[in-house]
Amino acid sequence: MQLLQDKIRDFGNVLSPTVLKVDAFLNHQIDAALMKAVGEEFAERFKDVQATKILTLESSGIAPATMLGLVLGLPVIFARKRKSLTLSGNLLSATVHSFTKNVTSEISVSRDFLQAGDQVIIIDDFLANGEAVRGLLSVVAQAEATAVGVGIVIEKGFQHGGKELRDNGVRVESLAIIDSMDTDHIRFR
Amino acid sequence: MQLLQDKIRDFGNVLSPTVLKVDAFLNHQIDAALMKAVGEEFAERFKDVQATKILTLESSGIAPATMLGLVLGLPVIFARKRKSLTLSGNLLSATVHSFTKNVTSEISVSRDFLQAGDQVIIIDDFLANGEAVRGLLSVVAQAEATAVGVGIVIEKGFQHGGKELRDNGVRVESLAIIDSMDTDHIRFR
Repeated sequence: MQLLQDKIRDFGNVLSPTVLKVDAFLNHQIDAALMKAVGEEFAERFKDVQATKILTLESSGIAPATMLGLVLGLPVIFARKRKSLTLSGNLLSATVHSFTKNVTSEISVSRDFLQAGDQVIIIDDFLANGEAVRGLLSVVAQAEATAVGVGIVIEKGFQHGGKELRDNGVRVESLAIIDSMDTDHIRFR
Repeated sequence: MQLLQDKIRDFGNVLSPTVLKVDAFLNHQIDAALMKAVGEEFAERFKDVQATKILTLESSGIAPATMLGLVLGLPVIFARKRKSLTLSGNLLSATVHSFTKNVTSEISVSRDFLQAGDQVIIIDDFLANGEAVRGLLSVVAQAEATAVGVGIVIEKGFQHGGKELRDNGVRVESLAIIDSMDTDHIRFR
């Protein structure tokens, strides 16, 4: 997706060969028009699937997932990393380690919103080691629903998550795949 | 906002006289079309102000704030409750206690995205005691920016946050204000 690659080149900040900071448009400040274009691109990529739900993980997945939900007219569920008084009982949970935040979280989705037979598109901002997506796939499986695809805004193609998921038969659609990066240059696949 | 009140009546769940669960369309599952309508309504309410930024707090403020950002063509910043490897240095911070989650968080915004002179619309999902909004107002003040208004999806009018803010001269636009609620009935102002 050219618009996204341009944003990454112009506003991304390579902090190390593995850490890309995109706080200017995705992870802290959000470019709403870009998110709308991202949602439309996901809808185009998944136009052949009959999805019933969109599932993401708080917080940075929410904006692109909501824009996809708007295009497809589907409910968007965001898995919670923290417990809330109002989210209790009857939860589908999985453990996810975030290398960027260096924390292990239990992610939770209420059974009220994910049912057996649901056809789920999983959306996330980044794919690196694949921890978050594996947690979301586990939640979908626990609900006896089906993950019909995974949509990723930025995939770090030099880390193993995307390859492992695809090798396991998961359909992964990444709008930008970075093959390598340093402070001078970001190379896209 | 009638559409929102209808959603609250039809899908809200009063857990106690002070706790309203709206996980079906706002806090866990997101109704994207409703969020778009909410964004448009905020834009209408704030059509007289010349805002330059929209500020919210992860996670449930992100969808309505992003939809407002889309309508107004403005950047949306979400304050972080947790630290990230990529969010560091040069932070504007405030302490916020959440009564619903029963945790005290330090919320943070990078100085990179909020500058002196910015005219900021603050958006949040709920207003009860006003803790989150006060934290966001503190962040705006630290940046030497101006909060031109606060947009709230659901205000619990029977708690003191909204009154205190308005008494202090803060412009608060709440799309639904609940005066009282019990399991049988939700009464809107």
